[in-house]
Order: sequence, then C-alpha cells, then structure tokens
Amino acid sequence: MKIDHLGIATGGIEESLKFWEDALGLESVHVEVVEDQRVRVAMLPIGESRIELLEPLGDDSPISGFLEKRGGGIHHIAVEVKDINESLAKLKAEGVRLIDEEPRVGAENCLVAFVHPKSANGVLLELVQKTA
Amino acid sequence: MKIDHLGIATGGIEESLKFWEDALGLESVHVEVVEDQRVRVAMLPIGESRIELLEPLGDDSPISGFLEKRGGGIHHIAVEVKDINESLAKLKAEGVRLIDEEPRVGAENCLVAFVHPKSANGVLLELVQKTA
Repeated sequence: MKIDHLGIATGGIEESLKFWEDALGLESVHVEVVEDQRVRVAMLPIGESRIELLEPLGDDSPISGFLEKRGGGIHHIAVEVKDINESLAKLKAEGVRLIDEEPRVGAENCLVAFVHPKSANGVLLELVQKTA
Repeated sequence: MKIDHLGIATGGIEESLKFWEDALGLESVHVEVVEDQRVRVAMLPIGESRIELLEPLGDDSPISGFLEKRGGGIHHIAVEVKDINESLAKLKAEGVRLIDEEPRVGAENCLVAFVHPKSANGVLLELVQKTA
C-alpha cells in the first residue's frame, strides 16, 4: 500500500501553483478537466505520490461546499491498494461505512472507491487500484 | 522531495487503530509520548511515507482545538526536504508566511519547520530534514 495522492481543494489552481511550484519547487505535470466530477485537476508528483489540486467547475461541484466552509485545504487522502474488491470486502466485514460499496472508474481509468470519514478517523479516504 | 508523513488528529489512538490497522491493514510500528508537544503519537508506515496518529495529552495540547472544532481528521502534511535552510530561504524569498522562521529539532531528531496555512493553500505544512 502507498499514498497515491493528496487531494487539496483550491478556489484557483493558478493561484495555488504560486505556492506549490514557485515557492515549494514541485511541478505540475498534468492539468485536466474532469467534467464528470465538476472539477479541474492539476497533478504535482512528490516522491512516489502526487499532490492533486482540485478546483470546482461551478457551485454544483462536490468540493464547492468544502471550499465555502474551509476556504481550501486538504480534502482527501488516496491510497493505492492491490485489489480494491478485497479491500472493500475487508472494510465491510469490519463494519466500516463506505461511500462507494462498489468500485467505479475514476481518473486515469483507475478503479476507485471512497470510505466515509465517519468511519475513517474523520478522513475522507479514497482507495485506488491501478489498471493495466 | 517526498511525503514524510500525514498527521491525523484523534481523540484516542487505540480507537483509531481499529480503522487503520484492523480494517485497512496498516501496522503501528512505534508509539511515543512527545511531552514537549503535549501529544502521544503512533506511526504507521505506508510505502515511503507514514500515517502519524496524534492524540492530545491534555487540553493544553496544540491539537485539542483542532479536535474540538473538527472531531478528528487530517491535521498536517509533512514533506521531506534535503536542505531545510535552503527551503526556508526560498519560501521567505517568495513571501510565504512561516510559523517557524528557523528550523527546530522535532521527533526522531529531525530538523522541522512549519509553514502557515494562510500561505500554503489552507494546508498546515511541515518541512522535515532527516539528520544522520
């Protein structure tokens, strides 16, 4: 298991890059609109992981509420697992509350599923399984 | 640069381990009281990084306010840098607001310094330089 990415909510990717790129020295290698999720996304590799900047496409974006309440910051943690179905079965067996009972297709064609923060120490946790 | 650890605030480490160990399958390899910071800490390796569970030692702990307000969750991100003085100088030159202008000695004898969330996209960011 490893940390795949940290999702960080922002009102504007370009403004945020002044910190993550210009000041901290990371580099955005990929910017993409994920219409489905109503977000624009920038990916900045850091070691084996990535910082994922998330900008809402509109008020109907799932991160708009988070931004209104907190004004930016860490939105979720994504961990890469080998077998997402096996991980979900294990979590269910332990009584963990899931947002996604079944994996769905996420960015870069990965299989993803979210665990509810109520069951995960207050953390919105995403499981990711890479596909070939 | 890599993610050294993710600091996650909890009201009780043992309760949290039911999720991180029993359900998710990570393993706590080290539990330590850091009297100085008024926290008890558990470290769970994940790839090249670690999940750091933070439990307050009392109401005077720096994470007590966070817990009261949010009831747990991601408290900070720590990134490992090669030369913390160089990183701090770069951040200062870019006008970034720092909590620690100079590095101080943190857990495991590392040099650490915190960047203010106001300047870091709402993220409480810790810089860590390992020492020999």
